[in-house]
Amino acid sequence: MSGNQDPVIILVEPQLGKNIGMCARAMLNCGLTRLRLVNPRDGWPQETARATAADADRVIDSAEVFATLDEAIADCHRVYATTARNRSQTVPVLTAEAAAAEMKSTTEGKGSIAVLFGPEASGLDGEAIARADTLVRFPTNPEFSSLNLAQAVLLLGWEWRRVAVDETVIPAPEAATREELDGFLTRLTETLDEKGFFLTESMKPHSLQSLRTLFTKTGATQQEVKLLHGVLTALGRKDK
Amino acid sequence: MSGNQDPVIILVEPQLGKNIGMCARAMLNCGLTRLRLVNPRDGWPQETARATAADADRVIDSAEVFATLDEAIADCHRVYATTARNRSQTVPVLTAEAAAAEMKSTTEGKGSIAVLFGPEASGLDGEAIARADTLVRFPTNPEFSSLNLAQAVLLLGWEWRRVAVDETVIPAPEAATREELDGFLTRLTETLDEKGFFLTESMKPHSLQSLRTLFTKTGATQQEVKLLHGVLTALGRKDK
Repeated sequence: MSGNQDPVIILVEPQLGKNIGMCARAMLNCGLTRLRLVNPRDGWPQETARATAADADRVIDSAEVFATLDEAIADCHRVYATTARNRSQTVPVLTAEAAAAEMKSTTEGKGSIAVLFGPEASGLDGEAIARADTLVRFPTNPEFSSLNLAQAVLLLGWEWRRVAVDETVIPAPEAATREELDGFLTRLTETLDEKGFFLTESMKPHSLQSLRTLFTKTGATQQEVKLLHGVLTALGRKDK
Repeated sequence: MSGNQDPVIILVEPQLGKNIGMCARAMLNCGLTRLRLVNPRDGWPQETARATAADADRVIDSAEVFATLDEAIADCHRVYATTARNRSQTVPVLTAEAAAAEMKSTTEGKGSIAVLFGPEASGLDGEAIARADTLVRFPTNPEFSSLNLAQAVLLLGWEWRRVAVDETVIPAPEAATREELDGFLTRLTETLDEKGFFLTESMKPHSLQSLRTLFTKTGATQQEVKLLHGVLTALGRKDK
């Protein structure tokens, strides 16, 4: 993912500096760094933004400020507008997930993408919506759908990251070999046999299978199999 | 999606009331309503929580408070712990997306799921991690991965919501409650103590944590916990 092809996040007339900072943090969490501000209510720069950005200062420092939305999107090839409502009958609407996939296929080609977020209190107005190719909706709880600004930025970035970076696989801890596990199970079985655990011979296969299932489910590491051997040794002792 | 089968969100020793409120809001955005608090630093209830919850008051009002994590998870069948780091070599780790899919298949069966979130400054400690069946990681930007508490809750809820509407999942077997598993672990510990398993007092907490991790990973059913009790009884006998 090249930095230059990442979507530009545009906050249109944001009201509170602390929200701008939280947006910057959410952006960087998702690997996004290109922030633009259209006519921020309390001017720019703002110390409160820096405070809530945590260590995402570089997003704050490189933020670009524009007087109008048209200037902010002038160099963009495609514009998405986030909205809580379906305000338009004519602009296509995608979920954040579908929009991210579309963005990805667009940037695979060429050109800059902008995603617009409206002021905290009101969201984007009709003028801003009219500049969008596509609206983006977040399918939250319909009875309580209102996201705050930084949460909306986070979810958009999260969906972007999902398609832009493939890292869905996390290596599992290294399990013991099946032979090591079998060594423990064999010893456990023999010990239980000596202790009269299996009430009848006919029950034995079923009980053994249950034990095998249970200990296999642990996905125990080599270290853990050693621990189990230690437990078995201790339990076989007379009380100290 | 029935309200009762939704995951329980457990905030372990949360520090700031305003963050608890923002978590409540993020939860309700995703249709989650079951909030538990373990030993909140500034007590409970807190007005700051209500203020930042926006209109998610009902999540705040129905929040349950516990003195210890063990009490908070006693009736849960499966416990997930969110973490920014891979702190354990042995507990399986899933992305939020994969964890949500697993949670969904588990609740299709029956039983309560808990998802743990640690204190703002430090995250969950080793004691809490040892109580988890599975760790949950958020694959954010590796160079700037630290999510704030409410953002982590939002992303978990978002992933849950994504799968909660999907209905193509096979039910998992019913796990024992955490209380039932704890009953076995307590008895095992006492028995090992009598047998002199713990060579030194200083090693004991680490060994206990390893045992807890191992047996928690089994996701044992009630029937399997009974089997383990039977094994323990048998191993304590003299040879027949």
